[in-house]
Amino acid sequence: MSGTGATIWLTGLSGAGKSTISGLLGERLSAIGQQVEVLDGDEVRRNLSAGLGFSKADRDTNVRRIGYVCRLLSRNGVIAISAAISPYRAVREELKQQIPNFLEVYIDCPLKTCIERDVKGLYARALRGEIPAFTGVSDPYEAPLNPDLIISTDKETVEASVEKITYLLIERGHINA
Amino acid sequence: MSGTGATIWLTGLSGAGKSTISGLLGERLSAIGQQVEVLDGDEVRRNLSAGLGFSKADRDTNVRRIGYVCRLLSRNGVIAISAAISPYRAVREELKQQIPNFLEVYIDCPLKTCIERDVKGLYARALRGEIPAFTGVSDPYEAPLNPDLIISTDKETVEASVEKITYLLIERGHINA
Repeated sequence: MSGTGATIWLTGLSGAGKSTISGLLGERLSAIGQQVEVLDGDEVRRNLSAGLGFSKADRDTNVRRIGYVCRLLSRNGVIAISAAISPYRAVREELKQQIPNFLEVYIDCPLKTCIERDVKGLYARALRGEIPAFTGVSDPYEAPLNPDLIISTDKETVEASVEKITYLLIERGHINA
Repeated sequence: MSGTGATIWLTGLSGAGKSTISGLLGERLSAIGQQVEVLDGDEVRRNLSAGLGFSKADRDTNVRRIGYVCRLLSRNGVIAISAAISPYRAVREELKQQIPNFLEVYIDCPLKTCIERDVKGLYARALRGEIPAFTGVSDPYEAPLNPDLIISTDKETVEASVEKITYLLIERGHINA
């Protein structure tokens, strides 16, 4: 099975469902013989951006590094899936210009729901003021204005979300049906 | 044409010929339909390691980041070619353990010859003391003890060097003849 390669850029709040969706999407694509890499936010920070913090400049640098890796992977036929928060619109637009077959997928989930889920216990700490510059609480999140796809994780299952993204990849000719 | 993917890790002094060899090797492999990426030292520093300096710790971090990207590429069937100085033996050994199909290629060239070539004019500046921690002048270079291949760029042409590396790739089954 061959494809053109693409970058699936998930963006959304912490706890919106980016890692869960990217993990299952990665498994599904791999199962149909597609080369795929999931670049999860936490893992990528450890491998590429240790030493960077959470200022706007550092977040943008981190996002550019992930973008650089996605570009290298996707131009070699891999489906690269980024699951970093990537809160700033401008740097995402920059990547969109630089990376062929860049698909921006907005993982939309109300802040309230993310706070209720609080999978990593980070919102509780952020709301107590223990984490400075926490996206959605004490740091901005700029939602995409014109994403290729919007996934509302408070209204649909992970399975349904993964199917939608897979369908988008087929529709755009990046993987075969 | 399919291959297993591999990481060709060139290591050697500044001016030894890493970029020249990796560039031509990249072209040749691409011409026979192989997926290939050249991770040149300067370009990778700009994209992955802006802000890092040239202390041992920072050099090691830079090398680990390149290694991370090579691992992602090569496990997806790409021939990833690193052309960073990577002066320290221990971190190269670490990558060798982590990256499947890792081939260490020592680009061997006497310091005297590198200084005579001085393609970028850096040795002249380093010898005048204008560049601190310059590999081979004021910073160590630890040659590989047991590389997969040694290329002596003061004794052979770039064409011959590229042929040797290509032959190694064929011999190890990473590309087809």
